Amino acid sequence: MREAFERFGFQPIETPAMESLSTLTGKYGDEGDQLIFKLLNNGDFLSKADAKALSSMDSKALLPSISKKALRYDLTVPFARFVVMSRNDLAFPFRRYQMQTVWRGDRPGKGRYQEFTQCDADIIGSDSVLCELDLMQLFHEVLGGLGVPGYKILVNDRRLLNGLARSWGIEDQFSDLTVALDKWDKIGDAGVQKELLERGMTADQISNVMSIFGLLESEDLFARLRGVQALLLPKDAEAQEAYNEVVKLLEMAIASGVPASCISFDPTLARGLNYYTGAIFEVRVTDAPVGSVCGGGRYANLTDIFGWEGMSGVGISFGADRIYDVLEHFGAFPAESSTGPQALVLMLDQDSENAVVEMTSELRNAGIRAAAYPKAAKLKKQMKYAADLQVNFVLMAGEEERLQNNWTVRQMATGEQQQLSAASVVDLIRSAL
Amino acid sequence: MREAFERFGFQPIETPAMESLSTLTGKYGDEGDQLIFKLLNNGDFLSKADAKALSSMDSKALLPSISKKALRYDLTVPFARFVVMSRNDLAFPFRRYQMQTVWRGDRPGKGRYQEFTQCDADIIGSDSVLCELDLMQLFHEVLGGLGVPGYKILVNDRRLLNGLARSWGIEDQFSDLTVALDKWDKIGDAGVQKELLERGMTADQISNVMSIFGLLESEDLFARLRGVQALLLPKDAEAQEAYNEVVKLLEMAIASGVPASCISFDPTLARGLNYYTGAIFEVRVTDAPVGSVCGGGRYANLTDIFGWEGMSGVGISFGADRIYDVLEHFGAFPAESSTGPQALVLMLDQDSENAVVEMTSELRNAGIRAAAYPKAAKLKKQMKYAADLQVNFVLMAGEEERLQNNWTVRQMATGEQQQLSAASVVDLIRSAL
Repeated sequence: MREAFERFGFQPIETPAMESLSTLTGKYGDEGDQLIFKLLNNGDFLSKADAKALSSMDSKALLPSISKKALRYDLTVPFARFVVMSRNDLAFPFRRYQMQTVWRGDRPGKGRYQEFTQCDADIIGSDSVLCELDLMQLFHEVLGGLGVPGYKILVNDRRLLNGLARSWGIEDQFSDLTVALDKWDKIGDAGVQKELLERGMTADQISNVMSIFGLLESEDLFARLRGVQALLLPKDAEAQEAYNEVVKLLEMAIASGVPASCISFDPTLARGLNYYTGAIFEVRVTDAPVGSVCGGGRYANLTDIFGWEGMSGVGISFGADRIYDVLEHFGAFPAESSTGPQALVLMLDQDSENAVVEMTSELRNAGIRAAAYPKAAKLKKQMKYAADLQVNFVLMAGEEERLQNNWTVRQMATGEQQQLSAASVVDLIRSAL
Repeated sequence: MREAFERFGFQPIETPAMESLSTLTGKYGDEGDQLIFKLLNNGDFLSKADAKALSSMDSKALLPSISKKALRYDLTVPFARFVVMSRNDLAFPFRRYQMQTVWRGDRPGKGRYQEFTQCDADIIGSDSVLCELDLMQLFHEVLGGLGVPGYKILVNDRRLLNGLARSWGIEDQFSDLTVALDKWDKIGDAGVQKELLERGMTADQISNVMSIFGLLESEDLFARLRGVQALLLPKDAEAQEAYNEVVKLLEMAIASGVPASCISFDPTLARGLNYYTGAIFEVRVTDAPVGSVCGGGRYANLTDIFGWEGMSGVGISFGADRIYDVLEHFGAFPAESSTGPQALVLMLDQDSENAVVEMTSELRNAGIRAAAYPKAAKLKKQMKYAADLQVNFVLMAGEEERLQNNWTVRQMATGEQQQLSAASVVDLIRSAL
């Protein structure tokens, strides 16, 4: 993943795990605020605690006086802070990637962790659709490269949703619309209709909203796109422009090698977090035991909260832990992901200590991952250790072999054994790996 | 570093940033307990707060009722917990490395951070001195490989210090001895003498302690070792055995390629943390702006605290941030550490969009780190961007070049420009990098 990010010209940054609590509060909605892990001030924290909040036992009101710092909740807000603080040192468009842990006080469950790793790539300081294209290519490069089976890049655009809301006269209820769309997977048609009714939409408006789901009947992504366009107001310049841009993005993505079968234009994709203003992305894996494995989108105003307006950017996030779960579920881990020792040098007797140390060094100097058994334990025990470590080769030398400066090399997969000189051992293992 | 760790047969593990507060408390002394970052329980934490502690405003007593989790303070205690929890799944001796952030509520300063990265390698489940040897070789491999100038691996053994204490009749004041030794760098002879006097040692005992510092007059590490042996009781079997083991370790380290000039036997090295029971290590860099960059040692009883006795191990820790500081101080960063884009494809006019995207993909597919300027901005602006990014090559194609499927390639270091076909561009850049 790291290699692909860098090949795409993204540069690594890291930000501290701890941010000021005030930097994070209010950025993720009320629910998010509650899920942020807060750090207790060190030392005698009660000495500066808010007396009024304490006497009324008000946990929320007490917070600012006993906690100044909190753990990162995502990588996007710290990135926005970083960009604003480093604005004079960065070249824009700034392409950064960041792979770090985030923490959320969620109830742990399938695909939901309190501590997990996000891998984000963002381009900030350009509104060109080529940035979205870059990120779609990166999805394909990374997920294809990892061998994730059956992934689908879902694409939509907030401006199309805005246009539909305008077309149906529900622009004031836009967040109701997005919440309902997000829930559709779980609560179905009837659930969405009920929810929209409760939120005060008319029967006509609800019927309009439900028509979006009908567009999913066609598998052809451009047919779906045309279906959305037909629902937009012809005079709605913003939405029509968005339509043209999404068509261009998808055409270019396919032309540049992202298979059409890996892309789905999904007019029902809304993505709850409300800082997105343009294209939105989500990646799901067919028959996977977890929800989406990636997400992202364009934000016109991300740095506004830190006082720098008009910096448009677009970013995506890979959920490393969920991708791990998916690969494990499908037994699809790449073979080269093992990093254990390739060779183990056994110690047949105490006198061979020096020879064992020398041989181990020679292997390592030749770039072979190697370790020695550090004691002249029973051979059976040492061989079991080699098997447990799943090493490819075992080396051993008895007294006589040492006199001739020879080694017995055992290929663990086949049980085949050879007697070779030290130099030939290294050559054999290097050529076999 | 990672590559060297794996070549030495260490396998990566990661543990959560958050540990139970009770797992960490009491492991790092009183001062350590105060420096541990504690996480406030989520939700209405006051509802379960200890009423008595609250009414008496006792922060310390209140802690357990409002904080269940805390941030890792080092990698060793989480590693010990991991080993005990995974004992049935691990092959011993278990060789693990771990590179993760740790957090300490220290006052930040030169070389002292609240959040920093430790890189630990440990071998647990063997008391063979070959393990110590492996780690000394690893110090040399990593620090030499990174080009850290003038590093010195300081070696001592707690059992020698114990033997000296026995020899001088101060075995009951062993911790006073180690504290004094640790402070000598800062407070000097007079300071140490004063401190030992205050702690109740006799003039004779103090004079004995001070004699250790006299051993530093010789630069020859084996001469220093013999000097220590001369101070030990001849009948002290443990200390004499330790002496023999240290001699063997240092002889083998030198024989295996660690330069003697990089090793210092330092009989005054004590290392405050009290879980060490055998060899102790510290690495310092001559004329560096920070203290030690690595540390470590053998611990006979690390997993005892988690209920598993008699597991001897030895481990070392590289302080990544201090090594960074040292490399920066000496301007010694390896050139290959840059990961920024190597090539930038400019967009001379809007019509070249497709050609720019294609060229960028071709570069990336050839393994070249590349990005495109996403808009047909002014050439000067795009060239400044390329210079800011410090790319090696800039590619551009005007209308005429595109008709001939040619590109102008500019080598940024020399300003040299060539007109080449797309395929030749890729070849040129690949061969140049």
